Amino acid sequence: MADIIVHEVGPRDGLQVEKQVVPTEKKLAWIRSLAGAGLDIIQLGSFVNPEKVPQTADTEELFRALAAQPRSKTIFSGLALNERGVERGLACGVRMFCLGVSASETHSRKNTGMGSMDAQRRMIAVAKEAMTAGAEVQMSVQSAFGCGFEGPVPESRVLEIVEAYRAAGCRRISLADTAGHAYPGQVRRLFGEIRDLAADVQCACHFHDTYGLGMANIYAAFEAGAASFETSFAGLGGCPFTKVAAGNVATEDLVHAFQRSGLCRDIDLHGIIAVARDVAAHFGREMPGRVHKTGPVSCS
Amino acid sequence: MADIIVHEVGPRDGLQVEKQVVPTEKKLAWIRSLAGAGLDIIQLGSFVNPEKVPQTADTEELFRALAAQPRSKTIFSGLALNERGVERGLACGVRMFCLGVSASETHSRKNTGMGSMDAQRRMIAVAKEAMTAGAEVQMSVQSAFGCGFEGPVPESRVLEIVEAYRAAGCRRISLADTAGHAYPGQVRRLFGEIRDLAADVQCACHFHDTYGLGMANIYAAFEAGAASFETSFAGLGGCPFTKVAAGNVATEDLVHAFQRSGLCRDIDLHGIIAVARDVAAHFGREMPGRVHKTGPVSCS
Repeated sequence: MADIIVHEVGPRDGLQVEKQVVPTEKKLAWIRSLAGAGLDIIQLGSFVNPEKVPQTADTEELFRALAAQPRSKTIFSGLALNERGVERGLACGVRMFCLGVSASETHSRKNTGMGSMDAQRRMIAVAKEAMTAGAEVQMSVQSAFGCGFEGPVPESRVLEIVEAYRAAGCRRISLADTAGHAYPGQVRRLFGEIRDLAADVQCACHFHDTYGLGMANIYAAFEAGAASFETSFAGLGGCPFTKVAAGNVATEDLVHAFQRSGLCRDIDLHGIIAVARDVAAHFGREMPGRVHKTGPVSCS
Repeated sequence: MADIIVHEVGPRDGLQVEKQVVPTEKKLAWIRSLAGAGLDIIQLGSFVNPEKVPQTADTEELFRALAAQPRSKTIFSGLALNERGVERGLACGVRMFCLGVSASETHSRKNTGMGSMDAQRRMIAVAKEAMTAGAEVQMSVQSAFGCGFEGPVPESRVLEIVEAYRAAGCRRISLADTAGHAYPGQVRRLFGEIRDLAADVQCACHFHDTYGLGMANIYAAFEAGAASFETSFAGLGGCPFTKVAAGNVATEDLVHAFQRSGLCRDIDLHGIIAVARDVAAHFGREMPGRVHKTGPVSCS
């Protein structure tokens, strides 16, 4: 059984909705610990307007600081919304960009000011620019399972975006459940369709736990062939441009669960639990993740 | 696709670990609302020593009060630990008893003062007494997926108890994840084995959400053929005789999720959300359930 890829999005998705801006040194300590614990990919931040999203204004600084670190197997990814973001990322050495398009017209307009088709054309051009410069790209379909504004999102539109990504040469494609509307039957069906359409694509998934189905959806995606799982330390997170926000599935909960099935054995669970506890202590409130509170399954 | 059975255990499992004893009138209001919303089975309480468990000391009173209600399709169940409990239940008109044995030696001794094999013999005799008197019986295997004291529990011991239940004539069998150790691969395997061994058994499941896997385990059990799901309003609950306690999966979260796949359509989701909100208001603290906080998936 092939192992899964754990993509930590806490430093970006987790922190972007927090009012409090986390000091760069604190972020660096968390990221270094997570890389030391063996996570596959860590999303350091986003190349967006630092005045609009001050929480990730230090993204360049993080990439530069970590480029000087002893090499680890961890890949550092960065989110970009446009050409300018990719240019900023390339300038500070980003090797993996995360780009996306919302399948929901309303969510797309609120998030980017563009309709979904315009965003698709724009982001594919941005992806090509990044790939031409030698970077890896993961393209996501946001609101792939439903939208807090529009409700159901047609699967045909999701598959159309996936097909366009693939035609542009992208082989890492993520489906994001921005609003948390996904349920396991739907997840299994949609990932199954992508596998049938595009067997050469490596599927990733990103679930918010709004209605308590985050982990069940992760298992459904895993069973339908998804290989990469985007999660956040302590379960932090939420999109500011959706109606009912909730955190991501917690990284430590995912690793704990998958280790029980013999996967993720090269990740140091105690190391990522320690980071989640420090994240919770930093914000001084109860976090949605479970395992950083309970510790792993054990017996006395 | 056959519909599932929702077995609400909040009035018993949910309330038994609360320090505060809920007034009988308040319980009756919740139970009447849940029955009115169309839940299949509601566990009203337990026939145990009222001095040890004052939270369920009014169980007889609840059964008597509800026997006088206009008939609904809802079955009211009661938990018993021994002959005396069944006798008390029969005297107040109980038609469905829930009885159980822990597959973990240590948990069995802490919970009942008997080892697992002795408890098995005793509880099968109790079940026969109840069945002879014309009542339905659901037999559960507690700590079926692991024990907070002992760690892993042998599947062979779980299957042995299931076989003994079946040989005694019981056809409703529940596997309870008392400590929350279950993970989906294990759940699917164990329910699959029971289905292969005993196709005439109706399987129930009972998951605690200690490590964040409650809902994922519910889906795994459903896919492996489990028909009945024990959940608690607002996600309340926890066994006092286990090491790390956590609530049950929330009834409203389960119904909300399964309705998205076309199941549980005869349950009034808004009715059970209203009860969960009243439970949360009564205790005045944040509850683990999600959907009573967010409301159902919707669009603006």
